[in-house]
Amino acid sequence: MHTMALTKHARQLLVIIAEAALEKSLVRDVKRLGAHGYTVYDVRGEGAMGVREGEWEADRTIEMKVICEAQVADQIAEHVLNTYAPNYAVTMFFAAVDVLRPEKF
Amino acid sequence: MHTMALTKHARQLLVIIAEAALEKSLVRDVKRLGAHGYTVYDVRGEGAMGVREGEWEADRTIEMKVICEAQVADQIAEHVLNTYAPNYAVTMFFAAVDVLRPEKF
Amino acid sequence: MHTMALTKHARQLLVIIAEAALEKSLVRDVKRLGAHGYTVYDVRGEGAMGVREGEWEADRTIEMKVICEAQVADQIAEHVLNTYAPNYAVTMFFAAVDVLRPEKF
Repeated sequence: MHTMALTKHARQLLVIIAEAALEKSLVRDVKRLGAHGYTVYDVRGEGAMGVREGEWEADRTIEMKVICEAQVADQIAEHVLNTYAPNYAVTMFFAAVDVLRPEKF
Repeated sequence: MHTMALTKHARQLLVIIAEAALEKSLVRDVKRLGAHGYTVYDVRGEGAMGVREGEWEADRTIEMKVICEAQVADQIAEHVLNTYAPNYAVTMFFAAVDVLRPEKF
Repeated sequence: MHTMALTKHARQLLVIIAEAALEKSLVRDVKRLGAHGYTVYDVRGEGAMGVREGEWEADRTIEMKVICEAQVADQIAEHVLNTYAPNYAVTMFFAAVDVLRPEKF
């Protein structure tokens, strides 16, 4: 198989781990703030999160992945931090990724 | 606990987000193109993907993870792009990862 | 929307892909070795893993994500490698990620 050179474009992966109760709000938020897509799935998990700081808590939890420009990822993260983190269990992390069709992200 | 120095080896993580209907084909493809393993799981998601460009579509969607040498990841991505992207909703991203036992990837 | 500068802190993402039978042990291990949280979810997968080296095997499989300091990730990985890899199907990879609230990881 011949391989052409794939042109890759840097984007930011933002992963939001949150109480399942926040899914609808988060979907609305990431769209409004400029993400062009997302995936969500259910996970089991524990963490010293949000208002439960310092305690291990098991709960229904989701993981949401958003790939977007770094500035959009920052705006989403800032919004989530300000809006939900004071009252809900929420964890986020960022990773550098590459995509092939930059107009989609 | 004493910690020996763990020797890490660079590999490429390729994540393929696609319509669930493509799972069997993608599994066959990644094996044939040189991947030594994969994981797949079901996600909920929306995106401006493939032939549905510019529209938000909700559908049964899978996420497939493959960790392999960079060249193999590129060949898989190129094949997916050429074979499925024209007619199916499919999104991919690459990330740099490290593994411990390079002969397994 | 104005965006303040988000201060990011480097952490390590460790992903452990293993037979589902190991979930309880792995949860206990990662807590004991210093992780402050984890997520787990079920995946379908195949790989040339562990004692099944060189064979494609389909089995109930989990993926566990832990985000922590690099040293903690190494200790967990070393423990998993020494304890489970000789007898169970287990695969791991590391990725560099950024987090916002470093005291949580």
